[in-house]
Amino acid sequence: MAQPRTLALDAMGGDHGPEVVVPGAALSLERHPALSFILVGDEARIAPVLAAHPALEKRSRVIHTTHVVAMNEKPSQALRRGKGSSMWLALDAVRKGEAHAAVSAGNTGALMAMAKLILRPMKGIERPAIAALWPTVTAECIVLDVGANIGATSRQLSEYALMGAAMARALFHVERPTVGLLNVGVEEIKGAEEVREAHAALKKGVELPLDYRGFIEGDEIGQGRVDVVVVEGFAGNIALKTAEGTAKQIGQYLKDAMTRAFLSRLGALLARGGFRVLKEKMDPRRVNGGTFLGLNGLAVKSHGGTDALGFASAVDLGYEMAESGLLERLASDLETFHHRLGSDTHSSS
Amino acid sequence: MAQPRTLALDAMGGDHGPEVVVPGAALSLERHPALSFILVGDEARIAPVLAAHPALEKRSRVIHTTHVVAMNEKPSQALRRGKGSSMWLALDAVRKGEAHAAVSAGNTGALMAMAKLILRPMKGIERPAIAALWPTVTAECIVLDVGANIGATSRQLSEYALMGAAMARALFHVERPTVGLLNVGVEEIKGAEEVREAHAALKKGVELPLDYRGFIEGDEIGQGRVDVVVVEGFAGNIALKTAEGTAKQIGQYLKDAMTRAFLSRLGALLARGGFRVLKEKMDPRRVNGGTFLGLNGLAVKSHGGTDALGFASAVDLGYEMAESGLLERLASDLETFHHRLGSDTHSSS
Repeated sequence: MAQPRTLALDAMGGDHGPEVVVPGAALSLERHPALSFILVGDEARIAPVLAAHPALEKRSRVIHTTHVVAMNEKPSQALRRGKGSSMWLALDAVRKGEAHAAVSAGNTGALMAMAKLILRPMKGIERPAIAALWPTVTAECIVLDVGANIGATSRQLSEYALMGAAMARALFHVERPTVGLLNVGVEEIKGAEEVREAHAALKKGVELPLDYRGFIEGDEIGQGRVDVVVVEGFAGNIALKTAEGTAKQIGQYLKDAMTRAFLSRLGALLARGGFRVLKEKMDPRRVNGGTFLGLNGLAVKSHGGTDALGFASAVDLGYEMAESGLLERLASDLETFHHRLGSDTHSSS
Repeated sequence: MAQPRTLALDAMGGDHGPEVVVPGAALSLERHPALSFILVGDEARIAPVLAAHPALEKRSRVIHTTHVVAMNEKPSQALRRGKGSSMWLALDAVRKGEAHAAVSAGNTGALMAMAKLILRPMKGIERPAIAALWPTVTAECIVLDVGANIGATSRQLSEYALMGAAMARALFHVERPTVGLLNVGVEEIKGAEEVREAHAALKKGVELPLDYRGFIEGDEIGQGRVDVVVVEGFAGNIALKTAEGTAKQIGQYLKDAMTRAFLSRLGALLARGGFRVLKEKMDPRRVNGGTFLGLNGLAVKSHGGTDALGFASAVDLGYEMAESGLLERLASDLETFHHRLGSDTHSSS
């Protein structure tokens, strides 16, 4: 049976605040009745929306604050001035053990900076990363880092591999997730120095709790070749956004193609069941949510502009991560990894 | 009237050699009757295919060699052993002024290494780049660098901007092409150091022969927001491949959605005119070809696995670039740019 889990929601984050966060939480609660919530934000704005969702109201408590981090605030500013804000208090509820994960649709940079300060990086992690779920032709894969950091050393890339594998185990329920390093070519001679070094380190790590598959290229992510795709944050963020943009672009092509002639319009009408399936499959709200990995606590970032359906996906993600015991497992993996990497290096020298 | 232009084709390059290169050239000749060709490769293999295309045969001469650079050869190897190969001689025909551009479907790394050695970088260019045409909802844009180099300094990014703008002028016939810098966020605080520095330099360059529009994100490339998208080669290559992969993935979704139920199949049959338009629009062979920019001569890289239709697109591209006087204009832009950048820096200090 599912264990009770509490999520702390930044009710003021994103473009719409409580009007999206509260109905989103209500949707997720329908799917996961073991959930309860801490809603952090302006009670005067939360209460009227919450009143329309009595089932959610019964399983929520509100922490009142009118202090909000703006969407355009710089991370450094947010750190200085953000104490007591809805974002801050949601993360602090996780730190204090009152919540199992925090979810916010607020400013990404500010959320990451605060999460690092409040939750602190796990022992053995140099830099936390943001992991995204990426739809594939078979199911989904995990791509990280999608923008927490610019650049990554080979050591950091190896840590991403381990963090991504822990997340894949939690979400996909596979014991040894497959992992690939994103690169510009499949030949070992190609690519950046740090990517080649991470490749060498992961190849040696035969006892790691993951199945390393070597380099993969951008066109293979969506084919589902591996469970986890590792890349530094600049290229990872650009890849993610480019894929989103391409999907949108093809949606526009498709619409144009189906409305240009009478027969196409008629055909599209008859095939509307198929188009509905396609639309659902391509709906970006289905896989909304970037997970912050490598901290002593879980935090999920929702798209700022999403609606209740999209926010519910981010809440679902927070729940699944909290439910899976991801953090405990990752902590033990990190210990093992550091040990193994040490002994591997030793035995080969 | 179109001026006569000669292209040197590496007839042995790619997965198929003359069987794709020769029919591809024949297709392009139908579209551009002012073309003539130097076909470099094994005459015994070229002649029989050429005999089936009498119009092309009349406008071609063959340079015979049986020496071929392998698809998996390392660039350094190819440089050492590649002299006299079909790739080498095609580039050398450009150097000697016998051809206006070279087109090869061979090994990218080897082609770039040889092109640099034989054609040499233009004065004022630190590093040549590979530019790709990228389909957008409105038309096409140019993205560079898509893999010639890993990483780029701010100076190199500024040079890419200038090279891309010259190519946009040549292909899109706009006097001041719009240029964007690919970044992970639109706020000026974000992104890698060298991207921010290039941003500052381009913003100051009010007299540059381009219209700088600031940062753009991955999801905006396909929207056609700018004519030229500048990015370092690691992220650029990953973005390009990811977009290709996403298009393929959605094609698979679409096919599944349209074949799962009788009404959808019937609808898809009626709408086949629309689907044909879509298929053409998404056909990767339509925009095949990476252009090497920043050398004293033009070279176009075709996908290695493409067919005659795809190779013809790469030949078309070589022709259009050769016809446009791109190199002369770029050389003069580079002089102006260096001068302007100097005086801008001076006047602002």
